[in-house]
Amino acid sequence: MTATLGTTSTTKTPDLGPAVELVSKEEGHRQPLAPEFVSAEDFSPLEVAYDFGRVRREDIEAGPKNIWRYKKLLPVPSNVEEIPNTEPGATRLVQADRLAKALGVKKVWVKDDTGNPTHSFKDRVVAVALAAAREFGFDVLACPSTGNLANAVAAAAARAGWRSVVLIPKTLERAKILTTAVYDGDLIAVDGNYDDVNRLATQLAAEQESWAFVNVNVRPYYSEGSKTLAFEVAEQLGWRIPPQIVVPIASGSQLTKVDKGFREFGQLGLVDETPYKVFGAQATGCSPVSAAFRAGHDVVQPVKPDTIARSLAIGNPADGPYVLDVVNRTGGAIEDVTDEEVVEGIRLLARTEGIFTETAGGVTVATAKKLIETGKLNPDEEIVLLITGDGLKTLDAIEDKVGPKATVGASADAVREALGI
Amino acid sequence: MTATLGTTSTTKTPDLGPAVELVSKEEGHRQPLAPEFVSAEDFSPLEVAYDFGRVRREDIEAGPKNIWRYKKLLPVPSNVEEIPNTEPGATRLVQADRLAKALGVKKVWVKDDTGNPTHSFKDRVVAVALAAAREFGFDVLACPSTGNLANAVAAAAARAGWRSVVLIPKTLERAKILTTAVYDGDLIAVDGNYDDVNRLATQLAAEQESWAFVNVNVRPYYSEGSKTLAFEVAEQLGWRIPPQIVVPIASGSQLTKVDKGFREFGQLGLVDETPYKVFGAQATGCSPVSAAFRAGHDVVQPVKPDTIARSLAIGNPADGPYVLDVVNRTGGAIEDVTDEEVVEGIRLLARTEGIFTETAGGVTVATAKKLIETGKLNPDEEIVLLITGDGLKTLDAIEDKVGPKATVGASADAVREALGI
Repeated sequence: MTATLGTTSTTKTPDLGPAVELVSKEEGHRQPLAPEFVSAEDFSPLEVAYDFGRVRREDIEAGPKNIWRYKKLLPVPSNVEEIPNTEPGATRLVQADRLAKALGVKKVWVKDDTGNPTHSFKDRVVAVALAAAREFGFDVLACPSTGNLANAVAAAAARAGWRSVVLIPKTLERAKILTTAVYDGDLIAVDGNYDDVNRLATQLAAEQESWAFVNVNVRPYYSEGSKTLAFEVAEQLGWRIPPQIVVPIASGSQLTKVDKGFREFGQLGLVDETPYKVFGAQATGCSPVSAAFRAGHDVVQPVKPDTIARSLAIGNPADGPYVLDVVNRTGGAIEDVTDEEVVEGIRLLARTEGIFTETAGGVTVATAKKLIETGKLNPDEEIVLLITGDGLKTLDAIEDKVGPKATVGASADAVREALGI
Repeated sequence: MTATLGTTSTTKTPDLGPAVELVSKEEGHRQPLAPEFVSAEDFSPLEVAYDFGRVRREDIEAGPKNIWRYKKLLPVPSNVEEIPNTEPGATRLVQADRLAKALGVKKVWVKDDTGNPTHSFKDRVVAVALAAAREFGFDVLACPSTGNLANAVAAAAARAGWRSVVLIPKTLERAKILTTAVYDGDLIAVDGNYDDVNRLATQLAAEQESWAFVNVNVRPYYSEGSKTLAFEVAEQLGWRIPPQIVVPIASGSQLTKVDKGFREFGQLGLVDETPYKVFGAQATGCSPVSAAFRAGHDVVQPVKPDTIARSLAIGNPADGPYVLDVVNRTGGAIEDVTDEEVVEGIRLLARTEGIFTETAGGVTVATAKKLIETGKLNPDEEIVLLITGDGLKTLDAIEDKVGPKATVGASADAVREALGI
């Protein structure tokens, strides 16, 4: 794989902190740390393996108020916070009593990841990818994307002083183009769909020595960033694992890494290894993992996405089988919801907790509602919802559903009448 | 003033923590804490006076990671963090080395307030207003607004389970209407301009006993929330006051409260009382305070705003004279920049630091640039820039300026050619 040439373009040995090897997910083949993402032995995805040593709560608590407080559990150098990068994380964990009441359950927590630099959880994974990519000697940060990832990559590269190359389908909404283009990287609109863009990215990743495609050739490092969602939730709950957590599924990577995060915290003795259930959320218009779960399959049949939850619209999710493993192992479930329910989920969270999420968050809330109604989520145990992106980026989803209560003339009488006072 | 009747609708005595009285800004007349905003004695604005007692760094550091860590310096009850409200603050202070280099100065820090719940500093002031309003027995949160404040009020009321009443001019951009309406409060579009809406708000505030108009009848409490920007900057710098800070001017309240925050920290011994200079930033299309500063006046001549920086477009800024006092006392300066410079300021911050700000932030960056070029900001001393709002809310400002580098066919050759590789 030519992308590994990136390692030879610099003389220094990569310092990836506690990371020691890559291991294949299927058969556990081990290989040295490198910018590779598929095992040449069994063709399964590669994942980072660590030698953590001792990690104490005090070390973490004394760290910066961002994901770098968990650097001893990530594939990043020990001085990562001194190198220009974004500082995502440390987002709010909101005690959502009004939402809990509306859902008829005892306690709900909302992990509000809209507070990140570009307002989605993608800032977490991109920051880790950038830190690792620098160690491998890359100096261009790249990705194929249809939205949140494009924003995060362009912003992180700008902050680091790197060139960014972002490939998007040319039909992308103008707002998403603007919020990527403003960072002044190389944004290329492609006359094709996301599959075309993705194919081009894989091709370019294999031939451009200095380019780190965050979700292609440095994917094993990138995806580890999602563990920080689990770490933060556990720390914010007072160093314990929540009994139930609902996670949206796109490629499925986030869900598997949230599980990995809880397990690592438990293995290191940072939290008690209490049981927890992981639940997956999809939009019905792109629900291959939910369909496989319902059918009791352990493989996932690809679909052609058709949903307003575009940030989750991956018809052939790479980590689908591993999502099924996690959900089955922990005793969770996977459910999917219609686009109408997605919009109602967005509105429910907004009117009860003042949090405006993108369509993916609407999927999570609506799925939680359905899982409660069907008795799969236990109403007497705490539920954590991962809200991973911002409503400001998907305004079109609510455009025809919300608006002013009334439009009136400029008189106090008119306002009083409109308000019924 | 009938709005004070709000206090009689509840039997409990308001617990506003360290706040003890209201004092008029002109002649220092004192009066009991109440939901009033203008002195009946000298008709000047009322401000909160405190008896702080002892406040130690350890107390603050042990507090929550949001503005409530400073509750002992705010007009809020001592258990404020237990009552449903938003949890704004604890936003990033970014060491902006690439921006500093572009500006030709030694060190720049960017206080990135886009990380707040509704992505502007207004969440800070609204959270304090809500906490105080609850103590006065109000149960409706209201405001006239053209954008950020509308979002913050509607979201905070939703989270608290209060009714919100938000008055906007009906010509407001659809995006700003949607991002307020989604929280499901009473949003009323008025057939008039912002002045009309503001007049209606003042009228309704005087007659509706249970309505707290955050920026009208509870304004003295509301405006104290801006102090938390100064508190956070000082704490994040390792408990010290920065020598230079640039603050955008709308009503002027924020700038005066940042100064108040630094002074309070100094008086309490939380930081050394080192000298600092406060600089003000306006858009030329609405620059009454800048014009007064340039002319050496101590009063401000109202103007009719005409600028893309709409969140700063207050033609008759209530705190204009006090802004001039602060700037003159600290040895700062005020400058204004054209709309073209505002857009260049937005783009400069985005491409150097990966932070996408709204037009008001563009005003701050561009003004800093001008103040450096004219020698008013010392390039050898640290400069803090307050970035108070999010670019996602003012996409129209950059719409015609940024876009893809190229649109190409779906082939690797086409991408390579477009990128010159």
